[in-house]
Amino acid sequence: MPRAFSGIQPTGDIHIGNYFGAIQNYVKLGQQLGKQAIYCVVDLHALTNPAAYDRDLLASRTFEATLVNMAAGLDPEQVILFAQSDVREHNELAWIFTTQTPVGELERMTQYKDKTSKLESVPSGLLMYPVLMAADILLYKADTVPVGEDQEQHLELTREIARRFNYHFGDTFPEPQAVHAEDALRVPGIDGQGKMSKSKGNTLGVLEDFASIWSKLKVAPTDPARIRRTDPGDPHHCLIYHYHKLFSDPGVTAVVEVECARAGIGCVDCKKFLMTGVERSLTPIQDRARVLRADADVVHGALERGAREAQAIAAPVMQEVREKIGLVRARQG
Amino acid sequence: MPRAFSGIQPTGDIHIGNYFGAIQNYVKLGQQLGKQAIYCVVDLHALTNPAAYDRDLLASRTFEATLVNMAAGLDPEQVILFAQSDVREHNELAWIFTTQTPVGELERMTQYKDKTSKLESVPSGLLMYPVLMAADILLYKADTVPVGEDQEQHLELTREIARRFNYHFGDTFPEPQAVHAEDALRVPGIDGQGKMSKSKGNTLGVLEDFASIWSKLKVAPTDPARIRRTDPGDPHHCLIYHYHKLFSDPGVTAVVEVECARAGIGCVDCKKFLMTGVERSLTPIQDRARVLRADADVVHGALERGAREAQAIAAPVMQEVREKIGLVRARQG
Ligand code: SF4
Ligand code: SF4
Repeated sequence: MPRAFSGIQPTGDIHIGNYFGAIQNYVKLGQQLGKQAIYCVVDLHALTNPAAYDRDLLASRTFEATLVNMAAGLDPEQVILFAQSDVREHNELAWIFTTQTPVGELERMTQYKDKTSKLESVPSGLLMYPVLMAADILLYKADTVPVGEDQEQHLELTREIARRFNYHFGDTFPEPQAVHAEDALRVPGIDGQGKMSKSKGNTLGVLEDFASIWSKLKVAPTDPARIRRTDPGDPHHCLIYHYHKLFSDPGVTAVVEVECARAGIGCVDCKKFLMTGVERSLTPIQDRARVLRADADVVHGALERGAREAQAIAAPVMQEVREKIGLVRARQG
Repeated sequence: MPRAFSGIQPTGDIHIGNYFGAIQNYVKLGQQLGKQAIYCVVDLHALTNPAAYDRDLLASRTFEATLVNMAAGLDPEQVILFAQSDVREHNELAWIFTTQTPVGELERMTQYKDKTSKLESVPSGLLMYPVLMAADILLYKADTVPVGEDQEQHLELTREIARRFNYHFGDTFPEPQAVHAEDALRVPGIDGQGKMSKSKGNTLGVLEDFASIWSKLKVAPTDPARIRRTDPGDPHHCLIYHYHKLFSDPGVTAVVEVECARAGIGCVDCKKFLMTGVERSLTPIQDRARVLRADADVVHGALERGAREAQAIAAPVMQEVREKIGLVRARQG
């Protein structure tokens, strides 16, 4: 039976690109794997990013990320959901891998080179980041890792670290494979200028209130060739149609496709139909988020139980590692 | 009240250079500081040294290092004596420091440059070694560190890490100062060719049997100017006289000084006198070592209690650090 490890960034600021990309996949995976699906809010990794890290916000971002993922359907009764810093074995295994991983392999990581090319001073946490990531995954002997393509090189390093350990100390770790999310990942931004992303400020938030979402949709670009109401449009060149496919009933989407192409509906009406779909999709998530926020102890309790469950897997793996590398002193008799 | 942290290399192969250098100082410090004197067998650091690390020997070397230090007078009833890998907080704090320590500062360490200049592939553990060392010390808020001069640069980095943390997160760590051992540290090797050291194979072992020690002393060089028995010698140019000062009664040493200079004794007799002092000094250590070896659980038990005592100091410090950097999620109500 496969075991999957997913790292969740500690941010509460989840947009629909994240939702239709990572989160829906997390939820599906969790439904398939149950307690073999492990979700880790990577707050220790967040420390390596001086630009994003804020000591006054880190804990609440971890909380928010947990809350929004739970609201979106990740069920801590069914899966293992915890915060990285609550399970000490991550750092312990990372140190062991650090002693076995050449500096050169880390310096060659493309993300490291990209992230550091403009820095005056490079925190060594950035160099060591992929070693901790390898420990995150291998600590649970996960063989499946849902990641974006930008993490493929780090995952290859994880496999190399697993292979090296297995070679020197006997078969211990699987070589984890990536599962990439489908096209849904590439949700276009509300400005129509490429992928939705926080840094571009072109997002629709999963927890954003509907008035705010509507004010963004209202001014969103449509098919640029459709200048007048009477011009037929090409929905396949339209952002709004793309959103319909994510949010609306297939019946509605089919109608939009036909009516747009024969100028049967105007763009404002089309956006109103979309808004109905958006509200229908996000309302249950936003309702659950409100309930969880009103009773924050449910979220805290989920993380605490998740940490215990994660540790119940991690501790024996760590013990095996400690024995294999020779840290365990045998008492006689 | 000062608190001292001493790292003990995991090796059972302790020679009299170590004994008159580090160990005697450890014992004295322990007598002064009691449970504020913290001794850590650094088995996690040992992993960074691929040349010395042996997975089949690491645990027994940790055991041996503990045993020989106890035999030499380190009293685990009085001080805190434990193995690094038994206290998980070392790696946890090291990771936090890793995120705050520039790669450049680590690359500039002289020991790192020396150790890696001839390596094909440099394990990243070698680069991160001084960060873990800083965590070892600061985890106990130690302000005093008995180290050799070769560690002065690493200790300066520890102070820099402490300063940086204090600056960003408020006063937390002292800036630990080195205490250097006196001249005793520089015990000459049995070949008379400079300092006693394992790598030169010119050692007398603290636990070495006396026949073996005598066979080495018998052929050891003396004052090269004293060719015939009737030639007067200059004890200050003689290795054996140096050893007398370490091992023999001051009365015996005084006699040797006078009689050598007027050819009153021959070198063989002089060495026999020395052997008496060596036996008198080492017998109680070797006896204690034999007792401990016969009841290894005493050593294991000491390490286990030491780990609990160390953790009792480390855990609240770590909690303080976690709160200050923002990892602690506050539950309401
Ligand atoms: S009708 Fe809808 S799909 Fe067609 S161009 Fe307007 S907004 Fe886009
Ligand atoms: S008598 Fe002793 S001190 Fe003098 S030269 Fe011989 S060994 Fe050295």
